[in-house]
Order: sequence, then structure tokens, then C-alpha cells
Amino acid sequence: MYKCSLERMSDKIKTFSKFGDAGHGGITRYSLSPEAIMARNEFIKRMTAIGAKIECDDVANLYATIEGSDPTAKRIVMGSHCDSVKNGGNYDGILGVMSAMEVLETVVAENIPHKHPLTAMIWTNEEGSLYPPAMMCSGIVCYDYLPEDIRQKFKYEDMMNSKSILDPTQTFGMALEKSGFKGDKKFRLSPDRYQYMFETHIEQGPILEDNNKEIGVVDCVLGMFNYRLKFYGQTTHAGTFPMPKRKDAFFAASEALVYLHTEIDKLVEKLGVPELVYTTGEVVCHPCVHTCVPDFFEFSFDSRHEKPEVLEQVLAIVKSCADKTWNGCKCEVVKAWNRDTVYWDKKLVSYVKAAAEETGVSHQYIHSGAGHDAQFCAYVIPTTMIFVQSKDGLSHCEPEYSKPEHCTDGATVMLNAVLKADAE
Amino acid sequence: MYKCSLERMSDKIKTFSKFGDAGHGGITRYSLSPEAIMARNEFIKRMTAIGAKIECDDVANLYATIEGSDPTAKRIVMGSHCDSVKNGGNYDGILGVMSAMEVLETVVAENIPHKHPLTAMIWTNEEGSLYPPAMMCSGIVCYDYLPEDIRQKFKYEDMMNSKSILDPTQTFGMALEKSGFKGDKKFRLSPDRYQYMFETHIEQGPILEDNNKEIGVVDCVLGMFNYRLKFYGQTTHAGTFPMPKRKDAFFAASEALVYLHTEIDKLVEKLGVPELVYTTGEVVCHPCVHTCVPDFFEFSFDSRHEKPEVLEQVLAIVKSCADKTWNGCKCEVVKAWNRDTVYWDKKLVSYVKAAAEETGVSHQYIHSGAGHDAQFCAYVIPTTMIFVQSKDGLSHCEPEYSKPEHCTDGATVMLNAVLKADAE
Repeated sequence: MYKCSLERMSDKIKTFSKFGDAGHGGITRYSLSPEAIMARNEFIKRMTAIGAKIECDDVANLYATIEGSDPTAKRIVMGSHCDSVKNGGNYDGILGVMSAMEVLETVVAENIPHKHPLTAMIWTNEEGSLYPPAMMCSGIVCYDYLPEDIRQKFKYEDMMNSKSILDPTQTFGMALEKSGFKGDKKFRLSPDRYQYMFETHIEQGPILEDNNKEIGVVDCVLGMFNYRLKFYGQTTHAGTFPMPKRKDAFFAASEALVYLHTEIDKLVEKLGVPELVYTTGEVVCHPCVHTCVPDFFEFSFDSRHEKPEVLEQVLAIVKSCADKTWNGCKCEVVKAWNRDTVYWDKKLVSYVKAAAEETGVSHQYIHSGAGHDAQFCAYVIPTTMIFVQSKDGLSHCEPEYSKPEHCTDGATVMLNAVLKADAE
Repeated sequence: MYKCSLERMSDKIKTFSKFGDAGHGGITRYSLSPEAIMARNEFIKRMTAIGAKIECDDVANLYATIEGSDPTAKRIVMGSHCDSVKNGGNYDGILGVMSAMEVLETVVAENIPHKHPLTAMIWTNEEGSLYPPAMMCSGIVCYDYLPEDIRQKFKYEDMMNSKSILDPTQTFGMALEKSGFKGDKKFRLSPDRYQYMFETHIEQGPILEDNNKEIGVVDCVLGMFNYRLKFYGQTTHAGTFPMPKRKDAFFAASEALVYLHTEIDKLVEKLGVPELVYTTGEVVCHPCVHTCVPDFFEFSFDSRHEKPEVLEQVLAIVKSCADKTWNGCKCEVVKAWNRDTVYWDKKLVSYVKAAAEETGVSHQYIHSGAGHDAQFCAYVIPTTMIFVQSKDGLSHCEPEYSKPEHCTDGATVMLNAVLKADAE
């Protein structure tokens, strides 16, 4: 049983928080931006210092590897991403990179015997904040192994042509060329060179904190569906059109949203599934002028649960919106995408659980509600994840926080789980 | 009693509908755009042809005047605007210009005796679609006469610096310089040179059509208030945050909107004021991402009625939203602006009514729910308006339509009302 260093981990957290510091405790660090390149250079500097070999694949995924005692053994890789959303926090993504670095640093500092080469890695553009979509470069690397309906969203050419949301004259491909991190395709993570993948990440929810657990032993990424509800009304002038003749698409959508909450809450009660989540985060309103009745309103509907049979019943309620007229407006329910629950490798999950028990780190099983690069990787090689407690469950915002002690314990659990995998 | 020409009016409608034809029966004709300049040149061509003198003031308001028999008499002016919203119709604004042209053309063609000089005019930038705000150039010209709280929105310098919504490097002032229509301040409409103002406009509502009347004798522009309702929640990840702990600002706003409709509908019933209108046309959602619970949602609330005591009771309901918590979100109710009901000059209204009766044009009294340049003009000289029936009450959209017969009858009513004013 080995332990990672609180001092070394705290130093990394402090150092990486500078790269893209947005002045209010958090960061803005878009993928391949100058700030992200500073973080990558820091990673290379520290990994080179412990004797790791640096490789970079053709979409800038960055790998630092220390050799093991068995020259025929495949690599065990740990990692996450170093890019953030706009005004994000200091932990989402980068914690998984720092934890991987910490594991390698501990192995070298304590001279821990291991057969397999151990790799710390950075995935490029997980957030997709500047160049959509999210999980772009794990999508590219794992492309051949992904289910058809997911795969089609990650075509290499499309990804290279993804436009910057800030400047449509710039593409991801252009940023990649300029970054200095475009390496060789032969270095891509692949099953012939890699054995297992571990990703440590902040929980991004309040469950571990509420249950007073440091670490989550993640067993799956929840299945989900994403639909759009569209309401079609008639625009008229705010001052001249009598109320009873109006077809107000925003009011229609509001009535439908209240209906959805009412009906889904009843279903949750009936099925006893309080863990079900659903979110209506994105809206479109047209013409969106204070003197016009909206003739169009749209909102996204995202729902997540482990069991497909639960999601099916939620979807039936969502679809029932299209059977009614809302304030004179027609409603259309359109599928955006869905994904099945991705279960982590059972053996690796058991290693994480055993490592947490042996190191005395408080823990519980947990599902991942969010998507991560690891979930694409799971189609390629056996993969699992470790969650670290989030303060107030907040993420993708500047108050995002995890205690350095918890971060260090997360790395300790990953180290010991990796050593179990190594010892097979 | 004189009549305007259906043939001449139809020709004008056909001709002006070409300037900015957006290909689906309507037009996009932003103020001072090449399309608007084509319309202005057509106005000048036709007015010059009947011997009118052309003047242009310093904000491109365009005046065409035929002399009267009394050299000391002030001008009677008729007009409206020639700019449109994006994908607007062929009648809003331009009908008032064409009606004014038709009155002058009839007076000249039939050699109708009149003492006062008669002026047809085009107000610049009524819609404010490209360069906000709406009613910009009547606001500038009437500035000294406007109530303080309205006036402050029309400071000359601010107006010149108003940025194009399509290209923020371009300002209204720059467009004005380039247009070739920047004339002399001395030509501005003012009480020392102008006696009365008449504006003909489409109704933009379904009341005349429902009552089978061609013409509305407008008596006032309705008082209104415009507020913003802001909801403050907490953004969290769509997949990781349990429902009972969420503070979803979009759901909060939806619940509040349903509450507002319920309560205001009760008030309308109680007070017996079915003519009350209220509109929530503009929304803001943050961060507006399908994977995030919205932490902020805002909507506009615009309500219009003749009587301030009715609006006060509506406002009390709107303000009561701030006394509650909506799905864990705080609500703030913020005033944007309000205006009192502007009554048209009673004598001019009676001239319009009498003219409609004498010419046998079906008509009724009506309020204007929309704002018009005439309402600023009413602070400067006695002013009134005439409405022409709108098909289906539609406006600010391509299906906007008024029958050429009704348009011609509107001009006929204006002609005979103007002659009554002239004969005083």
C-alpha cells in the first residue's frame, strides 16, 4: 500500500490554477489556447523531470510514459483533459491529469516496482467549449470502436473543420496546426499498445459530500436521451392583437414545461427513482423582441438514468407534449441523440473498491451522470473512473472546489488500483 | 367631397413593394439602406412630378410640399416612415407615406383649392430595426417637447452613435453621412412652420376586420408599461445534480409566467377589460447550454391599456412575483419604461370621423396599441391618426396585407379631413 503526496498534489493544483486564471478563483482555458499550451508545457516539464518519455498523437493527445520491468507488457494509462469551459473551475479535467502525474511521480519517488509501462495523458478538447463537440479527440481516437450513431458525430474531417465559436474564420484544424502539438497518428491510444485506462474526475454533484465520502467508485456512465421540444405559434404586435386570438409560443412552452415537471415527478414517485434527472437548459425564442408575441420557442430536454426502461417512460411523457395544442401552438418533439448506459470494466471497478478499502479512504459506489473521455475509451480497452468529492456539487463554474486532501486520496486510490492491475 | 384614385394607389403599392423585396411577398428595408434610398428616390420623383418642393432635415426626414393659396398659412403635414423590420410587409409605415403622396397627387390632379401648404413626409428610422431605438428621428426632432423620461432616450449624440445590429463598426451617424439625405436642421418639423399632423397606418390588429370596418378613427395611443422579470438560480451539471436540490431559473420563469396568466386573466374578468393586452416577447437564458441547469432567466413584460388605473392593477400582479421564491430562485422585477396614454387632438379626430361619414367609408373609433412617430409629434403640434384594416391582424411579417380599396379609402378620408382642417 502506497500513498501519494499532499504537498506535491497541492503544489500542482496551485500551479495549474494559474494557467488561464480568470481573476475570480476560476479559469478560462480553451483547448489549444495559449493558456492550455502553458498547462501542457508544465505537464511535459514535470513528466520529463521524472524520466518519462513524451509522445503526442496527430490530434495533440499528449502521453508521458515511464517504463515497467516487463518489456512485453502493454501500457496502463491514466488521464483526463486540461481544457475548461468559459469561467470554469480549477478541477474539472485537470484533476485527472494531475492525479495521473502524481501517480507517476510517486512510483518514481518511491521506486515502486511495476511490470507495465505507466502513462499519464492529456486528452485534447474534452469540453468542446471553443470548438464543438465535447469529447472531440477521444471521439476521433476511439472512432473505429464506437457505436455507429455516436461515431458519425466524430468524423475526422468534420472535426478539423469545426469552427471557433468566437471567430468562425478559425477552425480546430487550424488551431491544431498552430499549436505545435500535432504529432504522429501512430501514438494514438490503441488496444495493441494499451492494456487499461483509469480516469479520475471530480464528481460534479453533491452526493459524495452529502454522504460524507471522499471518493466515488464509479460503476457506469448513465444512459441518456436528448430531445428538442419546438412550439409553433404566430407572431403579432404586442399592442394591437387581442389576447384570446394569440398563439404565444413562449407561453405554450412554459405551460408544457410545468406539465412535464408535474407528470415526471409523479412517475418518479410511482417508480421510486429519485435519482432520475432531467434538464431543460437551452432555449431558442423567435423573434425575441419585447414588442412581438413569440411565434417560435424551443427548449432542450436531457434526461439521464441507468435503466433504459425508466428513460423510456420519461420519454413517453415528453412525447405526449406533441399530442396537445398549447395556447393554440403546435408542439413538435424531435430526437437529438441518446446513448445507452456505459458500464465500466467490473474487474477494474473491483480494484478501485479494494484500493479504497485498503488505503482507508471513505468511499461509495456512484454512477457518472456526466460524459467523459473514458466512456469512449471503454469501447477500446477496459476502463474505469474514480470520483473525488465536489464542494456543494458545483462544477463548470468558478466556485468549483475539491479539498487537496481528497484530491490526494483520489490519486492514492488510483495508484493502488493501478498496481493491482499491474500485478495481474 | 373628393376621392383618391384606386389606380394611382395600387400603382404606388406595387412600385414601393419592389424596394427591398425579400422574395416571399414582403420586404426587408432597413432605414437608409440602398433599398430605403430607392424608396426615397421614388418619393422624390413622384412628388417633384406634381410640382412639390423637396426638403430634407439634418436627420434625413424628407418633406415634399405643395403651396397653398395663403402665403402666411402654416403647413399641414401627412406622413409616416418607409423603413421596415426584417422580413416585414408592404404596408407598415409606407402606407402612410403613399397615402400622403396620394392626397397631394389628388389635390394637384383635381386642382382642389386649399389655403395651407400641404406636405407629404417620410420619417427616418421609425422601426429602429438596424439602428435602435424605434422612432429615432421623430424622437430627435420632437426632443424639446417630449416628457423628460422619454426625451432622455433620444439624445442626438447617442442616436448618432447607435450601432448597427449587423455590424457594430457601423453607426447610424455614419449611415446618415453616407446616405446623401443629411440636410439642414432648419427644415425640421416645428410648430412655427407646421399647423397639424396626420398619420395613416395599418391597424396591425384584427379589430377592424372582425367588425367589418375599413377605417379606424384613432383616438389615442395606449398607455403602457414595460418591465423585466429576472430569475436567479444556480447552474449545475445536467447529469450530476439531484432534482430536489436544483434551482432552475428557466423552470422558475415558466411557473411565474403561468401564474401571471392565471392572475391577470382573473383581473380582466373582474374589471371587465377584455381589451387589455400583455406580452412576454423577449427572453434571456444563461448559460443556455443543454447540459447545464440555467442559473439565470429573464423575460420582458409589456402591458397596454388606455386607463392608468387598470395598468396599475396589472403591475401589482407583476410585482407580486418578486415576493415569492420560484423553484428555489429569487425573482427581481425591474422597470424598463412606461408611457401614459397619448390622446389625439379632439378636433382633428372629429374631422376624420366626419370625413369618413361624408365619404361613406365604414369606420369605428379605435385605440392604437402600437407606438408611432405621430405620438411624439403630438407633443409639438395637434396630431391624429387614421387606421386601415389589416388582414388577419398581421403585421411585421410577410403576410401583412391591406386591400388596395381600403388603402385608397384611407387616403380619401385623410384628404377630406385635411381639407376640413384647411378650411378652418
